[in-house]
Amino acid sequence: MTAETVAAYIRDRRADVEAALDSILPAPPDCPPPLADAMRYSLSAGGKRLRPILCLASADAVGGRRADAMPAACAIELIHTFSLVHDDLPAMDNDTMRRGRPTLHVVAGEGMAILAGDGLLTEAFALLAREPHVTDPLVVGRKLRVIEVIASAAGAIGMVGGQAIDLASVAPNGTGTTAIIDGAALQVMHAKKTGALIRAAAVAGATMGGGSTTQIDAIDRAFGDFGLAFQIVDDILDVQGDSADLGKTAGKDAAAGKPTYPAFYGLERSRTMAQECLDRAEATLRAASVADARLLGIGRWMVDRSN
Amino acid sequence: MTAETVAAYIRDRRADVEAALDSILPAPPDCPPPLADAMRYSLSAGGKRLRPILCLASADAVGGRRADAMPAACAIELIHTFSLVHDDLPAMDNDTMRRGRPTLHVVAGEGMAILAGDGLLTEAFALLAREPHVTDPLVVGRKLRVIEVIASAAGAIGMVGGQAIDLASVAPNGTGTTAIIDGAALQVMHAKKTGALIRAAAVAGATMGGGSTTQIDAIDRAFGDFGLAFQIVDDILDVQGDSADLGKTAGKDAAAGKPTYPAFYGLERSRTMAQECLDRAEATLRAASVADARLLGIGRWMVDRSN
Repeated sequence: MTAETVAAYIRDRRADVEAALDSILPAPPDCPPPLADAMRYSLSAGGKRLRPILCLASADAVGGRRADAMPAACAIELIHTFSLVHDDLPAMDNDTMRRGRPTLHVVAGEGMAILAGDGLLTEAFALLAREPHVTDPLVVGRKLRVIEVIASAAGAIGMVGGQAIDLASVAPNGTGTTAIIDGAALQVMHAKKTGALIRAAAVAGATMGGGSTTQIDAIDRAFGDFGLAFQIVDDILDVQGDSADLGKTAGKDAAAGKPTYPAFYGLERSRTMAQECLDRAEATLRAASVADARLLGIGRWMVDRSN
Repeated sequence: MTAETVAAYIRDRRADVEAALDSILPAPPDCPPPLADAMRYSLSAGGKRLRPILCLASADAVGGRRADAMPAACAIELIHTFSLVHDDLPAMDNDTMRRGRPTLHVVAGEGMAILAGDGLLTEAFALLAREPHVTDPLVVGRKLRVIEVIASAAGAIGMVGGQAIDLASVAPNGTGTTAIIDGAALQVMHAKKTGALIRAAAVAGATMGGGSTTQIDAIDRAFGDFGLAFQIVDDILDVQGDSADLGKTAGKDAAAGKPTYPAFYGLERSRTMAQECLDRAEATLRAASVADARLLGIGRWMVDRSN
């Protein structure tokens, strides 16, 4: 499969995801208009839809039906969007721009931004549980398992926990002191903050697609490595990239006293670490015979942030 | 069944709930210690546990097993606690005291309070989906239905939506203008903000207990009325009660320019409305033959805030 074919696959799946996302948010009169507007503002900000595309590709990789994985794909994008909205709040990262537009709390106020995040997170689970008329016990069981995977990845032992470590790790007033004192602690933070939801996206797709335990485990581990590479490259770009590539203000993390891979290991070693993650991820998928070209292509695309 | 028997039932179920809640939060090392502490601080603040007790009583009322309803009971208390933590934030109600103790953002900081709320909300769904090894398709189907009921009640068309209306309804700077202009709009706000989760607690218990559609519908409608009475009485107490009964600062809502039932209808008419809700709720339960004495007792206890 050529790079062009992978790019076309990603483009097609992104179109599928955009179409599905377009109709899933609650709307007036059931949902109060200011809240509906706030949720839609953030969800439609035009990210790459990396996580939902990965979820669909993972269902494809195990020979399942993509349609079965679409609710999980959308739910994960809702949760990712919730995390961005809350991360950007003044009490957190205090970001005023995101994907080239003012952040939600800037346009809708802090209270409405908190509520919109809460609404996006909750809606994800409503979406995952919907269609309880599905009576095939196999499918119902998979849905329940996917809800647990996603809730664990998103919550206090996963993404929210990673954000809590991040919150405590920022050097106050540029003093240079931080709660994260070495690369291992940094890796734990990122495994939770970024890695957990990426892995959940891959696992949810493979689970809904009916993958075997061996396949699901391999996909889980591989995207743990792809996710780590993704984060290392994010840190590298923060040091050297420009804001357009990154989708946020370059140099912000370093300026805020946040720990980064280049700060601990230097740029060159960080680049090598990212490559080692990629190699390990591919080997894991090949060993379990789920080295589907589309799935591999998406893993590489995640990390190649110049596209 | 005497009032004493109902009181004993409530006491026993509260003990069951406290025991169950005590062990369900994620703990270190999986969960970062400051986040674990923050979640526990709020969950252990010692509310009445009204919603989980109602959930268990509802399972009892339809002749089901209380143990089957316990995860839903605990999940709903987690969601209720999340809502209090976020409601108290400076960007929302800006409350500094709750249940006689400083609110979470006062003791842990605003960022950690936002994350603790996010963690409590997410953990609720992890809890609801856990034990995917349950293979009885009937039970698995009920669990999925309960997740959808609870997510819808908690989210943008339910509780979070009600909070968004509330946020927009506060008269700015005591100008006396508010987005809520009549009693009907006030009722919509409360039906979402308070009523939805109370109804979900009752419905979840009856569903996990294996109740019939007729029973579940009646319990749903009855606790819509009980919940409305609960809110009207809350507003009355805000005007005339003392802070100890209410568990929060008396007169705060009125002082903040929030719309209340007494403000729209006067105290006397508000009292009559609360009584009408109680009568209607009891009639609904009787008509569906689910007027279980414990369930009725809990409905009355909810509204009798002097206990």
